Amino acid sequence: MSDTSGADTVDPAATDRRGLKVLAFDECLQRLRDTVVGRVGFLRDGEIAILPVNHVVDGMDIAFRTSWGSKLQIAADAGRVAFEVDGHDRALSTGWSVLVHGTATLVYEEEDRDRLDAIADKPWIPLDVNTFWVRIRPEEITGREVLPPPAAP
Amino acid sequence: MSDTSGADTVDPAATDRRGLKVLAFDECLQRLRDTVVGRVGFLRDGEIAILPVNHVVDGMDIAFRTSWGSKLQIAADAGRVAFEVDGHDRALSTGWSVLVHGTATLVYEEEDRDRLDAIADKPWIPLDVNTFWVRIRPEEITGREVLPPPAAP
Repeated sequence: MSDTSGADTVDPAATDRRGLKVLAFDECLQRLRDTVVGRVGFLRDGEIAILPVNHVVDGMDIAFRTSWGSKLQIAADAGRVAFEVDGHDRALSTGWSVLVHGTATLVYEEEDRDRLDAIADKPWIPLDVNTFWVRIRPEEITGREVLPPPAAP
Repeated sequence: MSDTSGADTVDPAATDRRGLKVLAFDECLQRLRDTVVGRVGFLRDGEIAILPVNHVVDGMDIAFRTSWGSKLQIAADAGRVAFEVDGHDRALSTGWSVLVHGTATLVYEEEDRDRLDAIADKPWIPLDVNTFWVRIRPEEITGREVLPPPAAP
């Protein structure tokens, strides 16, 4: 993965040029695990679609169950997708986000589907709709956090 | 706007082929107004970036303050962007999302910037970073909701 090998050693106080704290790779993974809903971004008819999904983290992969249109849609653009989770605290004016870039593929193996079913929440998709599992293999994981403003002296 | 003229008259009980309730145009706008944090999706170096922002609704436009990189980045790809808000209730296994497609432009007029500053929350971006306002003019606004499962008889 392009952005991760060096990320473990990121300076804990590192900020990017926007003044945001850079989250270390392990911290990004933990926040992906701790978050129930994430958003998949993909190209659909030349436009960016962003749709929320209930996701699970399976090893290093992100997986979610979906019923969107045909299987062709997710496989379009060679399966290149983005995945995002975020959180915020309005009272503290703080927030964070983790962004994943990777390749999405359909999960065909029954064993894999059963394992994912076992670790997943009850799906939110109406049960009379055909669903399938999609797996995102990350190639880049980055995270940023807005730190709270310094306390008044 | 391509998807909005007919959306006011959407059947309140309409569902799409995924079995999700279709939100009417006015309902989509209201949820955009009621939500503090949304996500902008845009193409950056050929990849989809998804970043959370504090947004405001100004008339029919969505505006947010940002410090991302250069102004060139947001103007790339002819300013084509996506914008998403969502919400969920884990206990009820329900959720919704609204997706906007439109064109992003920088806000140059001081009068416009002052008006946006007045209606906006205190920015979360560190104050020592240069910020600018971006306005998204929607061309399409769509929304979907997962209805709660029917009560047991």
